[in-house]
Amino acid sequence: MDFKQALERTAQDVDALLDELLPLQAAAAPRLVQAMRYSALGQGKRLRPFLVRESARIFGADDTSALRTGAALECVHCYSLIHDDLPAMDDDALRRGKPTCHVAFDEATAILAGDGLLTFAFFILADAATHADAAVRTQLISALARDSGHEGMAGGQMLDLEAEERASHDEAEVLAVQNLKTGALFRFACEAGPILAGADDEARARMSAYARNIGLAFQIADDILDVEASAEELGKATGKDAAAGKATFIDLYGIEGARARASDLVAAAQESLSPYGEKADILRQAARFIIERRK
Amino acid sequence: MDFKQALERTAQDVDALLDELLPLQAAAAPRLVQAMRYSALGQGKRLRPFLVRESARIFGADDTSALRTGAALECVHCYSLIHDDLPAMDDDALRRGKPTCHVAFDEATAILAGDGLLTFAFFILADAATHADAAVRTQLISALARDSGHEGMAGGQMLDLEAEERASHDEAEVLAVQNLKTGALFRFACEAGPILAGADDEARARMSAYARNIGLAFQIADDILDVEASAEELGKATGKDAAAGKATFIDLYGIEGARARASDLVAAAQESLSPYGEKADILRQAARFIIERRK
Repeated sequence: MDFKQALERTAQDVDALLDELLPLQAAAAPRLVQAMRYSALGQGKRLRPFLVRESARIFGADDTSALRTGAALECVHCYSLIHDDLPAMDDDALRRGKPTCHVAFDEATAILAGDGLLTFAFFILADAATHADAAVRTQLISALARDSGHEGMAGGQMLDLEAEERASHDEAEVLAVQNLKTGALFRFACEAGPILAGADDEARARMSAYARNIGLAFQIADDILDVEASAEELGKATGKDAAAGKATFIDLYGIEGARARASDLVAAAQESLSPYGEKADILRQAARFIIERRK
Repeated sequence: MDFKQALERTAQDVDALLDELLPLQAAAAPRLVQAMRYSALGQGKRLRPFLVRESARIFGADDTSALRTGAALECVHCYSLIHDDLPAMDDDALRRGKPTCHVAFDEATAILAGDGLLTFAFFILADAATHADAAVRTQLISALARDSGHEGMAGGQMLDLEAEERASHDEAEVLAVQNLKTGALFRFACEAGPILAGADDEARARMSAYARNIGLAFQIADDILDVEASAEELGKATGKDAAAGKATFIDLYGIEGARARASDLVAAAQESLSPYGEKADILRQAARFIIERRK
């Protein structure tokens, strides 16, 4: 199996699992579950669950455990997109080629759908079906809460909004925002494998380094796409970051400089996988994909 | 110690613990932590943490475990208040006698502060300091996620918003909203004691029955206060539920009928504590307080 097949398979498996875990039938509040399904099912690259699954495979962790962990992580990612798209935040009408949740439903429903998906992520992780050992489950929950909360992704979104107020941005500031806003969930995705497998600290440190490098490369590629791609290709509005005065890597390095930097990061990410031989081939391909993707 | 002293002591202890767990110093995103502290510290009756602590005491669970569990629950309660107060939801400017989070900060910060508090609740519960046994911690996390998510509190808020669209409300509908919107967190609070102590199913069923009865009595009392109390006494806007076309118990039973119903519920709640002798005295007093409070 190559990278594209593995990514495609994870997309299908995450969809099937979330479809099963979030049934509309017999829901206490059907409209809410409908909105949660609208934003969590049938779309997205599922890059984060893919990373969980591949990082689990390297260390011999159970694939069902990894898939459930990836689905939980994807719930957190989708909640963050719903809330970030709200009028009070980035005010986006288009996401993954369709109307954002608050446009398709309404703002109140979108806020609750985000809340519901965030909460559900922890429900999935706490379930014994995710891992037989409760201590492993609490490690996952602790790591995901840290990486998605005020010292992780939510903190990064706050810093990103505050950065819009300022006229210029230095490298340290842009890196700090990225490290929290997108980097933290990548870190969770890549550390989940070693956690599920009970691997040693070196394994966790290596996967964390891989995550840091591809996370940063991913954000740089995102900034390039925001400038170069069309809204049609991307399935969301483009050119918005510059217009909003957001801190981007293009401001810091220029387009060509950003490309060179992303390429170096991919090489560094691949380097941290060196002890894992061909078991890590798909993650090496993933690192390349991250900077070559067109959406 | 009587009920009032126990409640007051819990309010102080929850405050001290959250102050310690949410330091402003060295925060990655200080403004976000400031908003979380604004909404979670120094206010509120702390009724839910009090219920956790007292339910833990009956079954001999460790008090530090109960306090941490109560603080986590209070984070969930405070997040729900922040999000419910947003302009897209109930649009309230006053809460606990001071400006709501989105008024004191801004909408984006308030959304993130709610998200941050919800996430942090699970971080607290996953920590080994909450209980030495990871299996107990995952039980708490699973129960809290269920009771606060789309099949619990968030589902109830969705139903409550939808009910505003309709002209009349029957009893089944009003009960369904209450059972999810306020009932679910009361259930968690009262089941947390038996969970922490590893008590048997009967204990959990009895505490759940106590919670169901006081939760419903609490909501009926809230509806009465919304009609009878002044905004000054209550620290939030009054008369809003009727104006918004919300489903209330006053519509169903009238004021006197509602009072009688609440009184019956308190008696039923006290009855379910019968096996626990004087260890449950404070919870019996709490049941009375719930319908006699003036805010």
